[in-house]
Amino acid sequence: MSILAVGTVALDSIETPFGAQERVLGGSATYITLAARYFTEDVRLVGVVGGDFPDEYVKLLRDGGVDLAGLEVIPDGETFAWAGRYHYDLNERDTLATHLNVLESFNPVIPEAYRDSRIVCLGNLEPTLQRRVLEQVRDPELVVCDTMNFWIQNTPDSLRETLALVDCLIINDSEARELAGEANLVRAAHRIRAMGPSTLIIKKGEHGALLFANDTVFSAPAYPLEEIQDPTGAGDTFAGGFVGYLMQEGLSGKDALKRAVIYGSAMASFCVEKFGPHRLVGLTDEEIRRRAEAFRELSTIPAFAGVYDA
Amino acid sequence: MSILAVGTVALDSIETPFGAQERVLGGSATYITLAARYFTEDVRLVGVVGGDFPDEYVKLLRDGGVDLAGLEVIPDGETFAWAGRYHYDLNERDTLATHLNVLESFNPVIPEAYRDSRIVCLGNLEPTLQRRVLEQVRDPELVVCDTMNFWIQNTPDSLRETLALVDCLIINDSEARELAGEANLVRAAHRIRAMGPSTLIIKKGEHGALLFANDTVFSAPAYPLEEIQDPTGAGDTFAGGFVGYLMQEGLSGKDALKRAVIYGSAMASFCVEKFGPHRLVGLTDEEIRRRAEAFRELSTIPAFAGVYDA
Repeated sequence: MSILAVGTVALDSIETPFGAQERVLGGSATYITLAARYFTEDVRLVGVVGGDFPDEYVKLLRDGGVDLAGLEVIPDGETFAWAGRYHYDLNERDTLATHLNVLESFNPVIPEAYRDSRIVCLGNLEPTLQRRVLEQVRDPELVVCDTMNFWIQNTPDSLRETLALVDCLIINDSEARELAGEANLVRAAHRIRAMGPSTLIIKKGEHGALLFANDTVFSAPAYPLEEIQDPTGAGDTFAGGFVGYLMQEGLSGKDALKRAVIYGSAMASFCVEKFGPHRLVGLTDEEIRRRAEAFRELSTIPAFAGVYDA
Repeated sequence: MSILAVGTVALDSIETPFGAQERVLGGSATYITLAARYFTEDVRLVGVVGGDFPDEYVKLLRDGGVDLAGLEVIPDGETFAWAGRYHYDLNERDTLATHLNVLESFNPVIPEAYRDSRIVCLGNLEPTLQRRVLEQVRDPELVVCDTMNFWIQNTPDSLRETLALVDCLIINDSEARELAGEANLVRAAHRIRAMGPSTLIIKKGEHGALLFANDTVFSAPAYPLEEIQDPTGAGDTFAGGFVGYLMQEGLSGKDALKRAVIYGSAMASFCVEKFGPHRLVGLTDEEIRRRAEAFRELSTIPAFAGVYDA
């Protein structure tokens, strides 16, 4: 039972109303793997970093149990670096700088030992690269994919080719509207699922997430946190918790998908409590379980039995 | 068992991406009473209209079972008129015109027969007028109140005086942030409840609603509609369904509040399916019950039992 995550490994410089930190460990592959690793042993990372990538971050990932055999290091290159500033309400952010660096020539090579991965989780990357990953993996049971507005706008045809190969797409609400060309999220979901992914998860940040699968729509709340330090990586952490949970429970059935959405949401709610991925280090199974149960407490509707007949 | 709703009765001119209609029946008191009336017999309206108010709208309200003894008609005045345009995603709207007309000199006089009302639902009005209503009602069991950014900004002291007298405040998320001076909704809720209302409901439009009461936080989803014609009145309809349901079930207990939030949400989901309040005419109890049950289907988290231990 194995999960392969392919995506960015980054050095993020982050400003929020609650502080600023430079060159924090980041990137989609980082958050996906650190979150997934709580649910299953065999979590494999494919990504690229430069010679400037700090040893302590390699150690953090390795201590987190992530298999780094697929982490390519280009000694004379620099690691992908992103800088962003979050607004007062944390729902909007400005990108201040994007230095692709080693990512510019990234050509994901999947190590032979990874080609039997059962779940492939494609972080936000150029859609052609995402397909190149899929060409190298033998018959995975589940392909999960993220993307972003940039690819929706600039490489729509390539993105469509990728989506045709994907089982589950995880994107945010503005991306869903843009990809579908449709403001109504329910209709947007129909259109997107017709492009390939039988399962669609629309992330809505502080408003939770919507799952569309089979004939089911499921609405997951967001955990009402009083302290949010840094939203960076929440979406990737969600994806990591989601695939991790599915790997543990098994990949089929709408109930498994719903539970996986809740565990993904629980992991994301931890992620935002501290800068970078630091809250994803050293969580206990009991903490995670309690957080997931808190989602149930938050959203359970008491029985109506008899009342309406009064 | 009686509900008193005090608020506007309006003629709305509405543009949405799906059409435009002029001088549609609107106003907070209209939507509150039409929704509440499905749950309890005795629903009383206090408001004011001009001589131009169409007989067919009086008939619509009366056929809906609303007690209109408190509807003041000023024969040589004109009815409050609002015009607005909704954007593509229906979450934002521009106010194109606001003609207060008879509302400008509105001084709500509560008929003697209404002074024993058990629930008072104060639609969005100048906070001094809201207090004037409360001075005339004898010892209601529950006072529910709405307000808007205009009063938060322009009459903050008067609004605070009103809030000190209110049991349950129902406002949207941007209003909650502005009233509390706090972007985080959980912390904003603490601050607002310290102003008076022990129960706070934050409406989030297409993202559902949050209930804060006692030590409970409850997150209600929004119903995933494919067809939304006109969001006008959804918030007031929510309030009407909420107070109507509470009148029916009884006013205490967090489970009753949660169920009332769901029934309020169900009524609001009907409201937006047609222009104006027309979808609130002729609903059956069975339709309402089925819609409320659909919220449960939408948000129920399957048991985790044993899975995480695997």
